[in-house]
Amino acid sequence: MQQIDHIRLSPDGDRLVILDQSLLPGEARYIELSTAGEMYEAIKSLRVRGAPAIGIFAGFAMYVLSRGMSKENCAEFEREFFEKSAYLNSSRPTAVNLSWALRRMESAVRQGAELSAAALEARLLAEAQAILDEDIAMCRSISEHGLSLLNPGDGVLTHCNAGPMATSRYGTAIGPLILGAERGIPLRAFADETRPLLQGARLTSYELQNAGVDVTLICDNMASMVMKNGWVQFCFVGCDRVAANGDTANKIGTSGVAILAKHYGIPFYVLGPTSTIDLDCPSGAQIEIEQRDGEEIRSLWYSRPMAPEGVRCYNPAFDVTNHELISGIITEKGICRPPYTRSLAALFK
Amino acid sequence: MQQIDHIRLSPDGDRLVILDQSLLPGEARYIELSTAGEMYEAIKSLRVRGAPAIGIFAGFAMYVLSRGMSKENCAEFEREFFEKSAYLNSSRPTAVNLSWALRRMESAVRQGAELSAAALEARLLAEAQAILDEDIAMCRSISEHGLSLLNPGDGVLTHCNAGPMATSRYGTAIGPLILGAERGIPLRAFADETRPLLQGARLTSYELQNAGVDVTLICDNMASMVMKNGWVQFCFVGCDRVAANGDTANKIGTSGVAILAKHYGIPFYVLGPTSTIDLDCPSGAQIEIEQRDGEEIRSLWYSRPMAPEGVRCYNPAFDVTNHELISGIITEKGICRPPYTRSLAALFK
Repeated sequence: MQQIDHIRLSPDGDRLVILDQSLLPGEARYIELSTAGEMYEAIKSLRVRGAPAIGIFAGFAMYVLSRGMSKENCAEFEREFFEKSAYLNSSRPTAVNLSWALRRMESAVRQGAELSAAALEARLLAEAQAILDEDIAMCRSISEHGLSLLNPGDGVLTHCNAGPMATSRYGTAIGPLILGAERGIPLRAFADETRPLLQGARLTSYELQNAGVDVTLICDNMASMVMKNGWVQFCFVGCDRVAANGDTANKIGTSGVAILAKHYGIPFYVLGPTSTIDLDCPSGAQIEIEQRDGEEIRSLWYSRPMAPEGVRCYNPAFDVTNHELISGIITEKGICRPPYTRSLAALFK
Repeated sequence: MQQIDHIRLSPDGDRLVILDQSLLPGEARYIELSTAGEMYEAIKSLRVRGAPAIGIFAGFAMYVLSRGMSKENCAEFEREFFEKSAYLNSSRPTAVNLSWALRRMESAVRQGAELSAAALEARLLAEAQAILDEDIAMCRSISEHGLSLLNPGDGVLTHCNAGPMATSRYGTAIGPLILGAERGIPLRAFADETRPLLQGARLTSYELQNAGVDVTLICDNMASMVMKNGWVQFCFVGCDRVAANGDTANKIGTSGVAILAKHYGIPFYVLGPTSTIDLDCPSGAQIEIEQRDGEEIRSLWYSRPMAPEGVRCYNPAFDVTNHELISGIITEKGICRPPYTRSLAALFK
């Protein structure tokens, strides 16, 4: 049974123990959750974040909650289970992995209607564990494919966060670096801080430092100089959605990194599971970009005003990197090369 | 007699009144300075900043101080004047304009040895005023040349701060926008926030907003998307040093903006006085880049830790933009075009 540190069961299985990511990097505090209310709040307040991580959390959360429910009346149990599941699902309605994981747990309940109470609990634990195991296998596979490109001593620049805390273990974009560190391969990471919400500074550099990877944090506008200095041989970034032609939506600033990489002749790779590839979306032009509150820019991490009151801000959360700027798309099934319309479609055949 | 708002004399001429830039953008507070100690502290604590602005400040500061000195004994006056001048000069020893302006004031004292007390004071005021007037004329000329490139409705992206508060009036890089606003020409500005010290957020967007320019603040990593959206027709940036071949050192991130501009086919211009052109420096390879404390990245504006304690940071203050990425260099004498080795040298003939 595989375990991860940032989302795990208490030894007696009655509580969910998670690393409170909202306090990072200032404090690494673990909190214990036993009620649906506490779990809802943990998702809502970003104590657990990253779509795959939220899915894993939801699986174990429903297992913990199921242990406190009476199983004498099967219909009554199912009603209570589905009610709690719907409640958790409402915490972040747009996170696809959350509802996907909850549906898997609900299916397990339906399929286990004939089981004893103990067997049903075991069935639910197995389902939660399967969600975790599949994510670990997927991240490991992506990391292996990414690592196969790297030579000892290489430097890799990454943007935003697609690491272990957003997934299960390894993560996607920085998975090859963490896997490399496990194997004692010397690699250097450069982490863009990723304004405005600083995921690179707060999370990526924290994860890489913890994994023993040689990491240097830079401001986003320093990437050009790091590349010019010859310090990076690859750019590895995650993805939120990949269109059929390879156009990739990812955290704002990714397209700029890709353009700089092309200018300096540095290969630029997108890493992510096949579930982020959307063959129904022909190109990046069809991907809608979330616009966020300008206050994220005006007030640094909501602490102190750093721009004139009321100054207009443009604050897109993501941008689209044109497929022509992408050297390869690394999934758990292997590395896709241009033309992507063909190589991505082949993944699903 | 031309005046500027952020550095001016009190009506009786006994005090220097300045806008305390260290409190911006939270508070626009004017402070009055009458002693050498207060003036020294104002430079040291960045209450006045920007090389040309410090030069202007120093001129008027020495005038104010001279009014309180006894002029009965000419040698005694000169000794006291030079002592105070040397003291102010020690506040920021690397600011070239500071010592340059103080030397001008000292020359005025030497040349005025035969004058009456009242005439000597008038001579010193005239010299301080000349330093200001020359800077205003230079900035206005750069602004005129820059504005000549723009069409109504154009968008201009700028990086860091080269505005009125760093100079006298108009500034350099954003001078064309401010001059355009004075003339009622509709132009749009996009200001990069410019991490780590946020000069774009704190100063540039403040100045443009005050000048009535339509300004939108963005994070540095959003420039690619703004360009892709077709919102900017020009990039205008300042410069700290221009080599003989046109390679330009400016605030970190400038070279990245230039590469993005080239990718999207947007003209990229450098604006600055001929005094920043260093014909003795053959190329950017000879320009040493100041490395600053990583704490500027780790602690947001020195308030709250935003990265793991002790994580290594790379924090260059400037970068060099290759001359091949620069469409033109705009000085008070006109617009230089490639090949720069020829066009820049011609400025000094």
